[in-house]
Amino acid sequence: MNVSVFDHPWLAGLFGDPEMASILGPDRQMSHMLSFEAAWSRACGRAGFFDAEQAEAAALAIEKAQIDLSDIAAGMAQDGVPVPRLVRQLKAIAGPDAVHRHATSQDVVDTALALTLKEASDLLEVRFRALVASLDQLVDRFGDAPLMGRTRMQAATMIAVRDRAKTWRLPLDDHLKRLSALRPVVERVQIGGASGDRKAVGALADTIVADVAETLGLAPAGEAWHAMRHSIADYASFLSLVTGTLGKFGQDVMLMAQQGIDEIALSGGGGSSAMPHKQNPVLAELLVTLGRFNATQVSAMHHAMIHEQERSGAAWSLEWMVLPQMLMATARALSAARDMSLAITRIGEPSEDRKNTSLDD
Amino acid sequence: MNVSVFDHPWLAGLFGDPEMASILGPDRQMSHMLSFEAAWSRACGRAGFFDAEQAEAAALAIEKAQIDLSDIAAGMAQDGVPVPRLVRQLKAIAGPDAVHRHATSQDVVDTALALTLKEASDLLEVRFRALVASLDQLVDRFGDAPLMGRTRMQAATMIAVRDRAKTWRLPLDDHLKRLSALRPVVERVQIGGASGDRKAVGALADTIVADVAETLGLAPAGEAWHAMRHSIADYASFLSLVTGTLGKFGQDVMLMAQQGIDEIALSGGGGSSAMPHKQNPVLAELLVTLGRFNATQVSAMHHAMIHEQERSGAAWSLEWMVLPQMLMATARALSAARDMSLAITRIGEPSEDRKNTSLDD
Amino acid sequence: MNVSVFDHPWLAGLFGDPEMASILGPDRQMSHMLSFEAAWSRACGRAGFFDAEQAEAAALAIEKAQIDLSDIAAGMAQDGVPVPRLVRQLKAIAGPDAVHRHATSQDVVDTALALTLKEASDLLEVRFRALVASLDQLVDRFGDAPLMGRTRMQAATMIAVRDRAKTWRLPLDDHLKRLSALRPVVERVQIGGASGDRKAVGALADTIVADVAETLGLAPAGEAWHAMRHSIADYASFLSLVTGTLGKFGQDVMLMAQQGIDEIALSGGGGSSAMPHKQNPVLAELLVTLGRFNATQVSAMHHAMIHEQERSGAAWSLEWMVLPQMLMATARALSAARDMSLAITRIGEPSEDRKNTSLDD
Amino acid sequence: MNVSVFDHPWLAGLFGDPEMASILGPDRQMSHMLSFEAAWSRACGRAGFFDAEQAEAAALAIEKAQIDLSDIAAGMAQDGVPVPRLVRQLKAIAGPDAVHRHATSQDVVDTALALTLKEASDLLEVRFRALVASLDQLVDRFGDAPLMGRTRMQAATMIAVRDRAKTWRLPLDDHLKRLSALRPVVERVQIGGASGDRKAVGALADTIVADVAETLGLAPAGEAWHAMRHSIADYASFLSLVTGTLGKFGQDVMLMAQQGIDEIALSGGGGSSAMPHKQNPVLAELLVTLGRFNATQVSAMHHAMIHEQERSGAAWSLEWMVLPQMLMATARALSAARDMSLAITRIGEPSEDRKNTSLDD
Repeated sequence: MNVSVFDHPWLAGLFGDPEMASILGPDRQMSHMLSFEAAWSRACGRAGFFDAEQAEAAALAIEKAQIDLSDIAAGMAQDGVPVPRLVRQLKAIAGPDAVHRHATSQDVVDTALALTLKEASDLLEVRFRALVASLDQLVDRFGDAPLMGRTRMQAATMIAVRDRAKTWRLPLDDHLKRLSALRPVVERVQIGGASGDRKAVGALADTIVADVAETLGLAPAGEAWHAMRHSIADYASFLSLVTGTLGKFGQDVMLMAQQGIDEIALSGGGGSSAMPHKQNPVLAELLVTLGRFNATQVSAMHHAMIHEQERSGAAWSLEWMVLPQMLMATARALSAARDMSLAITRIGEPSEDRKNTSLDD
Repeated sequence: MNVSVFDHPWLAGLFGDPEMASILGPDRQMSHMLSFEAAWSRACGRAGFFDAEQAEAAALAIEKAQIDLSDIAAGMAQDGVPVPRLVRQLKAIAGPDAVHRHATSQDVVDTALALTLKEASDLLEVRFRALVASLDQLVDRFGDAPLMGRTRMQAATMIAVRDRAKTWRLPLDDHLKRLSALRPVVERVQIGGASGDRKAVGALADTIVADVAETLGLAPAGEAWHAMRHSIADYASFLSLVTGTLGKFGQDVMLMAQQGIDEIALSGGGGSSAMPHKQNPVLAELLVTLGRFNATQVSAMHHAMIHEQERSGAAWSLEWMVLPQMLMATARALSAARDMSLAITRIGEPSEDRKNTSLDD
Repeated sequence: MNVSVFDHPWLAGLFGDPEMASILGPDRQMSHMLSFEAAWSRACGRAGFFDAEQAEAAALAIEKAQIDLSDIAAGMAQDGVPVPRLVRQLKAIAGPDAVHRHATSQDVVDTALALTLKEASDLLEVRFRALVASLDQLVDRFGDAPLMGRTRMQAATMIAVRDRAKTWRLPLDDHLKRLSALRPVVERVQIGGASGDRKAVGALADTIVADVAETLGLAPAGEAWHAMRHSIADYASFLSLVTGTLGKFGQDVMLMAQQGIDEIALSGGGGSSAMPHKQNPVLAELLVTLGRFNATQVSAMHHAMIHEQERSGAAWSLEWMVLPQMLMATARALSAARDMSLAITRIGEPSEDRKNTSLDD
Repeated sequence: MNVSVFDHPWLAGLFGDPEMASILGPDRQMSHMLSFEAAWSRACGRAGFFDAEQAEAAALAIEKAQIDLSDIAAGMAQDGVPVPRLVRQLKAIAGPDAVHRHATSQDVVDTALALTLKEASDLLEVRFRALVASLDQLVDRFGDAPLMGRTRMQAATMIAVRDRAKTWRLPLDDHLKRLSALRPVVERVQIGGASGDRKAVGALADTIVADVAETLGLAPAGEAWHAMRHSIADYASFLSLVTGTLGKFGQDVMLMAQQGIDEIALSGGGGSSAMPHKQNPVLAELLVTLGRFNATQVSAMHHAMIHEQERSGAAWSLEWMVLPQMLMATARALSAARDMSLAITRIGEPSEDRKNTSLDD
């Protein structure tokens, strides 16, 4: 029924981001959950915690399991997490002894999240580099063009296009550095067991955690982070910083594109159903919208840190509602910013000539 | 790809609300947009503004038009609104002269929103009444049972179950009254034309507006409200007030359901993959989650009031990202609250007996 | 030490609002708390619940009590509310038997809040009327002037100044109506006793509540509303709707005041330390700032609805942090909007002449 | 007048933090602004940009200037910044030639902010270390005590106190590391001149910037950061991460302190005016309140990134409204968390004995 702009049959034409959607989509999520379960079975088998042969057989069965999603959906309504039903299905396929034993729902869901964030961060990095290249190109082409500097929305002194473009371009370096620092912090397995203390696997905990981590390409975590959500909230804050920077870019372009100001020209602007001559700066507006969207959502991710005891159903599922949307908004903002910067055909102070005729363009 | 919890193949098992999703879904949206266009053609025909026969023919063609959604999606990316491409398609079917002329994108999208809010409010009212009935029933059954009053989460003095239940039940009356007051304010046609001043239809404006309104079952609006978003923001605030009340209900039930407190028993609670004996208060948690979700989203709807000039692409589309989700959250919270109240099998101070054995229940 | 912009020695020159600050200030708050305690003593005396003579003597003593605020401050740190120490001081002055007995902290603090909101709403109404008058005057003077309508920040079709001014003016009527509807809902006594059930005053509850209400000029409340915060949250939403409308006004003026657009001239604009020729639209910016400030704060007031059981220390005190600031922001926005509308010396499309020389104005 | 809980005569008894208030207060702010102006005069003198003797004389005069704050306040209302009037006063004292020339308002205010953040971060670090020590002490004393692990607020499996305490303690290490990484990013001079391009000081820019930076104990900045607010927003996000972690600590303690749960005992808990026997967990509640407060405010700081062009009056002053409050909330939360952890006299599963009599404690 697709009430979300990110999945909507036509709104997604503007808001959607098929690459990020595919990373965040249920297929990849389920695949990550099964990867965890298989890695868990194998690691417990290798550690001698499960029977080794049973464990390997279970892992193989898990990897090719066909999951009945409607059963999982029914389980969500009852259990608040997909894992109990998933485990029941897996046990029916792979036997009860070497499946999921001593792991818990949060281990599955949060480790799957870590895998998602890994793929999402890969994509964001690619997008960052593409945007940086297009902005560098923009500055190469137009950097020396004169531009009226504006403070408090009033004409101040003449600057160059490169001066304003710096405020779009330089923060991206900082954001990329932040992402590099954040990635190892969130790309870690979550393993805690029932109450998060790893007691059930006892002295084998470090071995099993390291094994699962290596299999999944994640870092081992010294402790379960189930009830410590600050790294996830920090990652969300990072996303909103990115869209804030891009929102400033969009806001500037919207202002420069006004007739009477005429400091920028974009190819392929949007039309109006009433005024076909209009060229609306659709991508610039989108950047502002996505910036304000994430600036709002980040608040929910900070509220979700107030997590009760060893697991908060209420705070945890608030993350599920918000974080994927923030990732979508960020990925889309990065591609929209690049598309917009490539669409700029002129930037800088208009000639007097151009100014006088701007309304007829 | 469904990154939204409301549409997700298994998360929607908990968060989803098929009835509200169907009201908000693209099929109904498109149907509302076509209804507007047909009503517009007819009203302009009857007013003598369009050729009457052409107008009726156009309206009939619009009503059975098969819309190419991928074209609309492509138009979104370029125009930032679905309407220019929709109109192009309709004109190809129904001729250029009696379709959409002198209306504008916002007239179509915002009037469609008014139709959506009408259907959504109908559903919310049904849900309110069902919830109120289940809470009244709860009080009938358990109202006199003693309960330890707790202030600042500390035992205070004994109260009755009906005293706490009042804080869940009484605000619903106020919310229903607010909804009744809000409905006529948002269930109004939006008609303004290019810059919202209705100038293109001149002296016929009132006649055409009244005709469109009557056809669509909406109120006529004395003025276009395109750039005055306070009623929409007020409606969003109302939604969050509702989920705030229900969040309090959920929070209370979560606290009462703790072992050691044992003031409530619910049938059908959720299981844990690690601890099958556990009965997690899933619906109670959900109510808290949805309450905090809407309490966050409402902020975006208030930011969206800061709308530039005659139309803000940036602020308007922020509404599209947020308002449907708030409606979904509210509808789901109302049904979850009802389900939860019906699932209560015991409420009030536990007997000493029950207290000692609570962990084995 | 004044870290708040509303109380700061120089920032309050812009953000401050002495009239609202005086309504919200500690002197009035203490006065309201003492008014409640005196009214409570008298009402309990008249109802025969306290000794009548003792009660009257206590009320008189309460009314002229000199409160040691540093003792109250020390109590805050320990008790989380000012009332236990206040009551201790009052009992030392007026004897233990006819002071506060069977009332509770929340009765005192929330009834004082109701008195504050009454005075605050009176001031807001005065401000509304003054703003409406200044906008009507603006339309009288400049309403027919032509103005380029702008949609999506792009020139659309010519409108008149009155068309844009409607979007600033019309919502004020709706806001005033909302305020009228809200006032009786929040201007109610809060009386509940220990756990909010009024049990301690038994059959006399209605009599005592009515008496206190009449004395204080508030409505009686059929029930204690201690744990039902939706009316307060609704009032906060109203405040943010107002500043959202005024933020749109400010945003429009900022855009119109750009050199190159030149659609408005304001007297007394702000200077720059580097560029004395600049005329910054300070009040217009302030309106945007206050609009976004309240659009953020309103979220906290909605979160504060998720109130545990009979009293939530955590959620209740979140209101104390946020609501007074929202009132300050709203009062200041109303006065700034009026000042700004009175400062407009020209509005509408500039003559070509003016346009070409705008940077030298 | 003091409508802020941080400055209020009695509410500050709970919310106030005299040390942070003194760092953020107007006296220090003015002192920082004067330090900038003196450093600027000297640096420009040493660089040969101002007459060297005049510059030194001006700097000395600036350092002992008595500022008329009411004049600055009047200037705020007109200019939206304190600097034009401040400069006018300074020029009256120290002559026009070697004061502020080629600097701009934002250079003064943002460099003063950097100095404030330096002192604030020093204090936060001290508070972090004190809190860490008290939590380590808590674990030393009670770490092995058994405690019922609770997931989704339901009893799960027995853990040890140290397991839960880890979720309060471990994030503090991460927060301290983040602070160390953030400090060099925000403790930088802001120097840009009129439109932020440093053009007025030409080739001497690097020399002057380095000199001012050294004098003030800040890092030089390769570029003006006037319109790139992501570092400030990141710092604000950090503050909210800290209060989120402490909010979780507070939430856990509130839950553990419930009668019937009885997993913690605190000395010096708060009283009730109606029920003197109650021990309210006031500091625990405060931590939740401050966590939710900052989780809301952080949203405004992210919105403030959407900064127009070379300076946004509207977005910039939104920071002034919000950031000082976030610093106050964070400093207070750190001290409250420490006080609370030191007040814990027992933690872990209660003996059966204690449980039965808990209500009479």
